Amino acid sequence: MEFQKSTLNEIKRGSKKASYDRKVIYEILDATEVCHIAFIDNGKAFVQPINFGRNENKIYIHGSQNNRMTNALLETKEVCLNVMILDAMKLTRSAFHHSVNYRSAMIFGRVIELTNNKDKLTGLKSIINHFVPNRWEHCRKPNEKELIATKVLEISIETASAKIANTPPSENKSDLNLNFWAGTIPVKTIYESPIPDRFMKDNAKIPKHIINFRNNKK
Amino acid sequence: MEFQKSTLNEIKRGSKKASYDRKVIYEILDATEVCHIAFIDNGKAFVQPINFGRNENKIYIHGSQNNRMTNALLETKEVCLNVMILDAMKLTRSAFHHSVNYRSAMIFGRVIELTNNKDKLTGLKSIINHFVPNRWEHCRKPNEKELIATKVLEISIETASAKIANTPPSENKSDLNLNFWAGTIPVKTIYESPIPDRFMKDNAKIPKHIINFRNNKK
Repeated sequence: MEFQKSTLNEIKRGSKKASYDRKVIYEILDATEVCHIAFIDNGKAFVQPINFGRNENKIYIHGSQNNRMTNALLETKEVCLNVMILDAMKLTRSAFHHSVNYRSAMIFGRVIELTNNKDKLTGLKSIINHFVPNRWEHCRKPNEKELIATKVLEISIETASAKIANTPPSENKSDLNLNFWAGTIPVKTIYESPIPDRFMKDNAKIPKHIINFRNNKK
Repeated sequence: MEFQKSTLNEIKRGSKKASYDRKVIYEILDATEVCHIAFIDNGKAFVQPINFGRNENKIYIHGSQNNRMTNALLETKEVCLNVMILDAMKLTRSAFHHSVNYRSAMIFGRVIELTNNKDKLTGLKSIINHFVPNRWEHCRKPNEKELIATKVLEISIETASAKIANTPPSENKSDLNLNFWAGTIPVKTIYESPIPDRFMKDNAKIPKHIINFRNNKK
């Protein structure tokens, strides 16, 4: 199912790369650890990176109680956020046609603060399980004091778009005989072997949810 | 030399992680391919990813002539942009203390459009050489038609801050005896072997500037 196109999310340039498909957009969100959020404070536009969680059509973020960004979002009650994964660098014989392969998702949503503990725990579980799937079952849940210290926001996605480039380099025919190297340099994010913290017992095994996390990233 | 602290760039939370050192901030910028830029359009805050270049205290971005973001930036004449590199995921026994190691730079600058060809070429050279160092000498420079089609913006950095976390996981003493795995999963971006495009001669060597680019990323 697709998100409806509006002046907010419709992609004008490079529309061949555009997708409004929910599944495609959710997959890009789920493949990234960090999103960038735009907000307005004192009439100026700011952008800040933050980790997040996703459940169906909701995104969750959290912060301390007195956080400039979360306060600003709760004032406008709306948000634009972006995630971007760089997949390859494309080098062409002409400077003009250098570009990248990437997956990017642009999200426009309504923002509310979750205020009761049940809802806050739902949001925090989503954030922890986005970080590492099933991690929530393998750590101590937040206690009352920690919940009081944490602001949890729920973003309902109203509309969104993805932009995906996954093609070889492309340039003018007239440049193809120039004596410059052209091609693709693939880019990957790798998650290395887990390093137990200094208080772990020496014989402690790496648990299954972490092995699965790394396997699924490959 | 440090950027001056102001209400814009001063880091209130996690101030131990903060740096205002120009060298530190420039290094984070130079280690990333893509920045995220905030802008205001019709009273709403937007964020968009874009590649960029840096020369000393100037950042360069480019776009097509009729681009919503560049037009919006030229209206406010100011910009906030962020780059963020994820270095590790830190898993603790408590959900509350999960966090990441990262390097992030927040830039606040003044924006102008470069209008004469000499200045535009300076900006585009900076963008191409940020993409792959020395690439500018190994590709065809933009021609008159390409320059006309390209808008080039110069951002003078007015103030900035970096936030760097590079510590082991940390949590309450009272949680250390809980039977959950805790530790660090290092995260790295890797640049794989270059793939020549289909019009390259079979015996074409990978040029030195590309070999150097990959070696310096390691």
